[in-house]
Amino acid sequence: MHTRQSLTLSSLAKSIDAQLVGDPELQIHGVATLKHATPGTLSFLSHKKYRRYLANTKATAVILTEQDATACPTAAIIHKNPYLAYAHTMRLLYPLKKVQPGIHPSAVIDPTVQLDPTAWVGPLAIIEGSVHIEAGVFIGPGCIIKTGCRIGSYSRLIAKVILCDDTIIGSRVVIQPGTVIGSDGFGYAQDDNQWQRIPQVGRVCIGNDVEIGANTTIDRGSLEDTWIADGVILDNLIQIGHNVQIGEHTAIAACTGISGSTKIGKKCLIGGDVGIAGHLEISDGVCLAAGSKVTRNLHGPEHYGGVLPVDRDPLWRRNIARLRHLNELAHRVQQLEHQVKTMIWNGQMDEIYKEATPDI
Amino acid sequence: MHTRQSLTLSSLAKSIDAQLVGDPELQIHGVATLKHATPGTLSFLSHKKYRRYLANTKATAVILTEQDATACPTAAIIHKNPYLAYAHTMRLLYPLKKVQPGIHPSAVIDPTVQLDPTAWVGPLAIIEGSVHIEAGVFIGPGCIIKTGCRIGSYSRLIAKVILCDDTIIGSRVVIQPGTVIGSDGFGYAQDDNQWQRIPQVGRVCIGNDVEIGANTTIDRGSLEDTWIADGVILDNLIQIGHNVQIGEHTAIAACTGISGSTKIGKKCLIGGDVGIAGHLEISDGVCLAAGSKVTRNLHGPEHYGGVLPVDRDPLWRRNIARLRHLNELAHRVQQLEHQVKTMIWNGQMDEIYKEATPDI
Amino acid sequence: MHTRQSLTLSSLAKSIDAQLVGDPELQIHGVATLKHATPGTLSFLSHKKYRRYLANTKATAVILTEQDATACPTAAIIHKNPYLAYAHTMRLLYPLKKVQPGIHPSAVIDPTVQLDPTAWVGPLAIIEGSVHIEAGVFIGPGCIIKTGCRIGSYSRLIAKVILCDDTIIGSRVVIQPGTVIGSDGFGYAQDDNQWQRIPQVGRVCIGNDVEIGANTTIDRGSLEDTWIADGVILDNLIQIGHNVQIGEHTAIAACTGISGSTKIGKKCLIGGDVGIAGHLEISDGVCLAAGSKVTRNLHGPEHYGGVLPVDRDPLWRRNIARLRHLNELAHRVQQLEHQVKTMIWNGQMDEIYKEATPDI
Repeated sequence: MHTRQSLTLSSLAKSIDAQLVGDPELQIHGVATLKHATPGTLSFLSHKKYRRYLANTKATAVILTEQDATACPTAAIIHKNPYLAYAHTMRLLYPLKKVQPGIHPSAVIDPTVQLDPTAWVGPLAIIEGSVHIEAGVFIGPGCIIKTGCRIGSYSRLIAKVILCDDTIIGSRVVIQPGTVIGSDGFGYAQDDNQWQRIPQVGRVCIGNDVEIGANTTIDRGSLEDTWIADGVILDNLIQIGHNVQIGEHTAIAACTGISGSTKIGKKCLIGGDVGIAGHLEISDGVCLAAGSKVTRNLHGPEHYGGVLPVDRDPLWRRNIARLRHLNELAHRVQQLEHQVKTMIWNGQMDEIYKEATPDI
Repeated sequence: MHTRQSLTLSSLAKSIDAQLVGDPELQIHGVATLKHATPGTLSFLSHKKYRRYLANTKATAVILTEQDATACPTAAIIHKNPYLAYAHTMRLLYPLKKVQPGIHPSAVIDPTVQLDPTAWVGPLAIIEGSVHIEAGVFIGPGCIIKTGCRIGSYSRLIAKVILCDDTIIGSRVVIQPGTVIGSDGFGYAQDDNQWQRIPQVGRVCIGNDVEIGANTTIDRGSLEDTWIADGVILDNLIQIGHNVQIGEHTAIAACTGISGSTKIGKKCLIGGDVGIAGHLEISDGVCLAAGSKVTRNLHGPEHYGGVLPVDRDPLWRRNIARLRHLNELAHRVQQLEHQVKTMIWNGQMDEIYKEATPDI
Repeated sequence: MHTRQSLTLSSLAKSIDAQLVGDPELQIHGVATLKHATPGTLSFLSHKKYRRYLANTKATAVILTEQDATACPTAAIIHKNPYLAYAHTMRLLYPLKKVQPGIHPSAVIDPTVQLDPTAWVGPLAIIEGSVHIEAGVFIGPGCIIKTGCRIGSYSRLIAKVILCDDTIIGSRVVIQPGTVIGSDGFGYAQDDNQWQRIPQVGRVCIGNDVEIGANTTIDRGSLEDTWIADGVILDNLIQIGHNVQIGEHTAIAACTGISGSTKIGKKCLIGGDVGIAGHLEISDGVCLAAGSKVTRNLHGPEHYGGVLPVDRDPLWRRNIARLRHLNELAHRVQQLEHQVKTMIWNGQMDEIYKEATPDI
C-alpha cells in the first residue's frame, strides 16, 4: 500500500517545520525505533520510557524535543511534538502508492455504474447497479459495492469490504478488509413471543477523511441514517448500531460496541472494549477509559472510567465475594454509627465526640 | 433489499387491525419519526419521550394508543401496541424484493448441487458439492457454501456469508454479510505443553425464521451439533462456541460471546457485550442486562445484571482502590461490631442496645 | 475437511499407547459422547460429571482411567489422560483430507507468484505478486493473498482468509474463514484536533503450528513486526493490535482484545472476553480468567481474575449503588474505628480492648 522514499535531513526538517542540528546532506531511507535503528534510518523520542535507548542508538538522526536534544548522539531534528513529527515523516518516507486507473477483467460491474476513469476496481470486486464512484477511488480485491452506493474521491477500500445498498462514503476514506457497512440493524418488534423483523430503510452516511478498521460492522439506520462524521477514526471489530451518530474527529478503539440510536459528540476519545447502551447522548470531548460500560448520558469534556483491573485469583475472589454483600455491609456500618452515636450521647462520654472525629 | 409501496389509510388500518380516525383515502408513501415526518408519511408514538413532538408533526397520520389519540393533530391509527403496529406497517410499505430466479454467470457451482430453479445465486458465489438449496433461496454476491450444506426455502444470505461443510439452515433465515457458520470449534488437548487439535466433526444446525447479523461466528459442534432453534435473532459480532444450544425465540444483542457446550433456553433476552462461560445452563426466559458476565447456571424467568457503570475518573479510581481492599474493610467492620457489642454488654450501658438498633 | 476411517480396538490402543481390556478385533467407526453413543462408536470419560452415563452407554468401547475401568460395561481403553487419548483417537478416525494439488480455473493468480506444484488454490482465490507458497498448502475458496506474502508448507486457509501485504505464515498453520491478517494498525497522531494517519510499515509474522479462528483480526506492526510464535492457538473474533508479541503455545479464547505493543509470554492461558491494555508485559505462564481486564504488567505463573459475576437484578442494583459510595463507606468505617478506639481508651473501659478483638 506504501512505497518508500529517501530524503535528506534538510528537506525533511523543512517539510515538517523542524530545526535541524547536524549535517543537512545526510540521507534517510526509513524509520526505526531507537533500539533497533540502523545507519540510514531516522528514529524518534516521544516518551521518556525510551530515553535510555538514546545514547546508543545507531540511527542517523533522531526527532526529539529541544530538552532531549542536548543528549542526542546523532543529528537532531528538534520539534515540540516529536510523535506528530514522526507521523509526518512517515507520510513523507512511505507515501501511499498511487492508484493505477483501470478495471481488473475479473471484476463484475453493472453497466449502470458511474465510474470515474481515474479509479481502480480490483480483481473479483462486484459493483451493483446505480453506484457512483469518484476520482482516484481504490476498490480492492473482493470488495462488494451494492446498489445505489456513492464513494467519494480518493477513498480506499483495501480488500473484501462490503457496502450494502445506498451507503454513502465521503472522500479520502480508508476502510480495512472484512468490514461490513450498511447491514440491517437489529430492529424487531415482539408479537406474541415471535420476533417481527422491521425493515431497515435508513442508510449509512460516512463523512470525509474517516478511517475504519478490519471486520468492523456499521448498521444502516432504521428510518433515518446512521452517521459517521468527518475525521472519525474507528479501529477493528467495532459494532455501530442503527441510527448512531458519531461527531467529527472522535476516535474509537477496537472491540467497542455502540448500541442503536446513541449520539456521540465531537473529539471524543473512546477506549477499546467499551460498551455504550442505546438512546444515550455522549457529549463533545468525553474520554472513556478502555473497558468502560456506559448506561447513562455523559457530559464532557471529562474523563470517565469504570473497569475493574484484574488481581491475583484468591485475593480477587475474596473481594468479589464481599462485593455481593456490599449493601448488607453498608447497613452494618450504618447500625454501628447509630450505636456509637448513642453511646457518645449517653452522658458519660460527653467529651468524646469532638475527639472522635478524625480529619477525612 | 426492499421495495416501496403506497397504501391508503383505510387499507393500512385494516391490514394491521387498527382503528382509523381520519380520512380513509389519504395515501401513505413512507414512514418517518414524528420530528422528521413530511406530508405523505406515517409516523408512530410508542414512547412517552417522543410525545412532545406529536403536536407539531407534519406526518399525514400517526400510529398511537387510544390515550394519545386525543392529542393527535393528524389522522390517527389507534392500536394498543404502536411499536408492533409500526413494524407491521413497515413490512407492508417496504416489502422484501422478490427473488429473481437464476444463476449469475460468474458464480462457481459444483455439478452435484441440487438447486431449486426458483432460487438465485449471485455473482462470484461459490457452491461446493452435494449442497441442497430449496425454493426461493437468495444466495448473495460472494457467498461460499461448502460441501454438504442444506439451505431451506426462502432463506436469504445477503452477501459474503460463509457456510462451512455440512451446515444446515432452515427456512426463511436471513444472514447478514461477513458471517461465518460452521468454523471449527476451539477444541484442543494439551500434550506435553503443545496443543493437539481435536477434529471438530459436529455440524451447525439452524432452525426456521432465524436472523443472524454481520460478522458473527458460529462454530460447528465437536461431536454433536451446535443448535440454533426456530425464531432466534442474533445481532452482529456475536461468537457462539461449539456445541452451544440456543432455544426458540431467544434474542442476543451484539458483541456477546457464548462459550462451548452452554445451553440457553427459550425466549431469553440477552443484552450486548454479555459473556457466558462454557458448560452452563441458562433456563427459559432469563433476561441478561448488557455487559453481564455469567459464570454459573441461571434460572428464569428472572432479570440478571452485573455491569459496573462508568463514573468520573477520580471518583471511580478512589472507589476501585477501595474495592481492592473490600475484604479487609469487611473484617474491620466485623471487629467494630465486636467491640461495640462488648461495650454495650459491659454493664454501664445496659440501655443502649435497644436504642442503638436502627430500622434497616 | 476431514475424512473418516475405521479402526480395530487393538490398532487404536496401540496407536495411542493405551491398554485394551476387551475384544481386540472390534471395529470403531466414529466417536460419540457416552450419552449418545451407538454401537460401533467409541466414547470417553474425562470428567466425573459424565460418570453417571457410563453404566448405560451403548458405545462399543470407552477411553477412561484405570480407576474408572472397573465400572466400564464395555471394552475399555485405559489411559492416564482420557481427554488427550480422545484427541489422538479423533485425529486417527477423522484425518484431514489430503490436499489435491492444482489451481481452480477461476482463481486469479499473478504471474510472479511462486507456487509449489503440490499446493491447491481454490475457486475465486486471489494471489497478488511476489507471493511464495510452499508444498501442500491449501488456499481455500475466496482467500486473498496480497503482495509479498509467504505461506509455509501444509498450512491451510479454510476460506475467505485475507492476508495483507508482506504477511509471513509458518508451516502447518490453520486459519478459519473471515480472518484478516496484516490490516493497518490503529496508529494516528493528533494534529490540531485532526488525526494524522501513520503509515504502518511493519508486518505480521506467524510461526509454525499456529491455529487461528474465524473473523479474527491481527494488525501489522507500525515499524517492527507483530509476532505470533509457534504453537499459539487463537479463537474467533480476537483482536491483536500492532506490534503485539505472543509467546509459544499461548492459548487465547474468543472475543479477547490485545492492545498495541503488548508482549505476552509463552504458555499463557487467556480466557474469552479478556481485554489487555497496550505497552504491557504479561510473563510466561500467566492464566487470565475470562472477562479479565488488564491494565498493568502481570507476572506468572499465576492465576488472575477480575470479572464480576451477574446477580439477580434488584440485588445487584443495590450492591452497585453502594459501590459508587465505597470510598465514602471506607471513610465512615475509619471514623467509627477512631471513635470506638477513643471510647476504649477513655478510662471507664480499660478492659474492653482485649476482649473486643476478634480473631480475623
